[in-house]
Amino acid sequence: MPFRPRYTGLIDKYRDRLPVHDDTRIISLGEGNTPLIRLNNIPRECGRDIDLYVKYEGLNPTGSFKDRGMTMAVTKAVEDGCKAVICASTGNTSASAAAYAARAGIAAFVLIPEGKIALGKLAQAMIHGAVVLQIRGNFDEGMRLVKEVAQNTPVTIVNSINPFRLQGQKTAAFEIIEELERAPDFHCLPVGNAGNISAHWMGYSEYLEHGIVNNRPRMIGYQASGAAPFLRGAMIDNPDTVATAIRIGHPQSWELAWKVREGSDGWFDECSDEEILAAQKLLTEKEGIFCEPASATSLAGALRDIDSGKIPAGSSVVCTLTGHGLKDPDTAIRQCAGGVISVDAALGPVRDAIVENLA
Amino acid sequence: MPFRPRYTGLIDKYRDRLPVHDDTRIISLGEGNTPLIRLNNIPRECGRDIDLYVKYEGLNPTGSFKDRGMTMAVTKAVEDGCKAVICASTGNTSASAAAYAARAGIAAFVLIPEGKIALGKLAQAMIHGAVVLQIRGNFDEGMRLVKEVAQNTPVTIVNSINPFRLQGQKTAAFEIIEELERAPDFHCLPVGNAGNISAHWMGYSEYLEHGIVNNRPRMIGYQASGAAPFLRGAMIDNPDTVATAIRIGHPQSWELAWKVREGSDGWFDECSDEEILAAQKLLTEKEGIFCEPASATSLAGALRDIDSGKIPAGSSVVCTLTGHGLKDPDTAIRQCAGGVISVDAALGPVRDAIVENLA
Repeated sequence: MPFRPRYTGLIDKYRDRLPVHDDTRIISLGEGNTPLIRLNNIPRECGRDIDLYVKYEGLNPTGSFKDRGMTMAVTKAVEDGCKAVICASTGNTSASAAAYAARAGIAAFVLIPEGKIALGKLAQAMIHGAVVLQIRGNFDEGMRLVKEVAQNTPVTIVNSINPFRLQGQKTAAFEIIEELERAPDFHCLPVGNAGNISAHWMGYSEYLEHGIVNNRPRMIGYQASGAAPFLRGAMIDNPDTVATAIRIGHPQSWELAWKVREGSDGWFDECSDEEILAAQKLLTEKEGIFCEPASATSLAGALRDIDSGKIPAGSSVVCTLTGHGLKDPDTAIRQCAGGVISVDAALGPVRDAIVENLA
Repeated sequence: MPFRPRYTGLIDKYRDRLPVHDDTRIISLGEGNTPLIRLNNIPRECGRDIDLYVKYEGLNPTGSFKDRGMTMAVTKAVEDGCKAVICASTGNTSASAAAYAARAGIAAFVLIPEGKIALGKLAQAMIHGAVVLQIRGNFDEGMRLVKEVAQNTPVTIVNSINPFRLQGQKTAAFEIIEELERAPDFHCLPVGNAGNISAHWMGYSEYLEHGIVNNRPRMIGYQASGAAPFLRGAMIDNPDTVATAIRIGHPQSWELAWKVREGSDGWFDECSDEEILAAQKLLTEKEGIFCEPASATSLAGALRDIDSGKIPAGSSVVCTLTGHGLKDPDTAIRQCAGGVISVDAALGPVRDAIVENLA
């Protein structure tokens, strides 16, 4: 008989590794359990013997990895009697906070940078019923304001400075280990606020400590060149990049991420906007996987380091794709100038257009 | 030890129930395995004792249920030596065809109705590298042209008239049965081309025939009032609805769907655009689940039939949410007029806006 327990989200699944009680009311949308997809065409075309996977976090309920942390943060906020959550966001956190707050029946306040948020993310925060405050400033200023406001207002911060967020996010590493039956040799992530790379390292370290595996990956964090404080060795004040999800100059997990680099013998590197968009397009055209620009930073960097041999032949490599491409349709369409052919609804012109393009 | 086989898509999982061989090259993006989410707040608020679930098919790789059929259709097309696929589409089929063709390394031609396709879907077809033909006509005209063109051009049709499509799609019923340990009492679906309701019935019937369960659901198909040939009892020529994914007047699975209604003792009904959008908003605001407008047709109809008692108290009900809300950000934002508050990046105005909305 093929019956199996209904999948009810990552807290239920990893209950014994997360800070919840037997009677905790779980706020879940079935997050986690995302596919680890092996790339076929890109490794073959680049001619390197690499076992290359993407962890497609865009298939979480709100379309990004943030849901892994948000189910924990909102569950704990509700347990503590909180009636409202707040976050600063480049878009994905606000979408996730708005959705989980709706599921919990509490209020959500989100601060987003005016004009610098992808269309899909804005739609999400709005339709889930969050109070959307568009500030005349960037993410870092929003983050500062959220901390100030929360000091004397009854709202719980659900940015990744909320420690429960990283607890939830560490489960992505658990899933990868369970499917590969070991940790990969390298794990590549886009780095903005630097919470996710820290959370993955927590997860890998926990499975090592508990004897489930005997290895951990080297962690590689790639930043957009215009928003690369880890490369500059200092916070920066005016970050800018097409990869809006990592347009952050003052990462909140600064210390944690440096420790990950040290502890894993990993490294940070940067990618230009052109490299990021090229990797996004390569992945959609060659593998059929559509991620948002920021997500492609992990692949852009990995491919460069594979090509140079810094990631040596024979390695297993996982790239995290943080968000779905549908989050940012405008940037995708801008990459495809001249991509649509308008024709009359008649056989002649349709057949002509097809035959011409079949050649 | 928590190791488990890496999930590699629904063909690998249901290999013995699908028309593939041991040496078939599977074209997969890790589709299927979508969450069946139990609604909490909506049943409580409507005061009916109903076990109500949504099958969130928007969490397939390209954001819609079409991927279940497309992995089969493209796998078989490649097995047969085909070098190009073609479809007519209101958007989701073209996104899926483009993605799976990219993964397979073959060409995709998609015919979409000019100006009547949601932004996210257009972005998908374009960035995956499909040849996008925007025809001055609707889906039904596109479908007719696709059939004509395929007669003397070396392209394989991957619309749901391709029999492998429904084979793949039937697996959604398998998953529901496996998680509920029985079939639900009622299964509600949006009906456009009518392939999906037919595929679900195939899946339910197969598990019944093989003795895995001893029940099947009553199948309910809801259409948008402006595109409701099953309600009119005849094809219609100028369908119109905000639910663009089911803006179809000449359903290709016409005969099949009538047989489903008869065989399952089910029914068809219709929902107005206002009811559809209201259900979409209700689901996002009360449960944190964002689907595209067409998807909400299943919930809109189900809630009405639950309220009237046509779906009796004590029933288990599954509503299929066919596509993710991110497919159509514009329609979502139009539902949220006045939803964004612009403020300076300073504590005073931010705190004021929050305190005002906390009250």
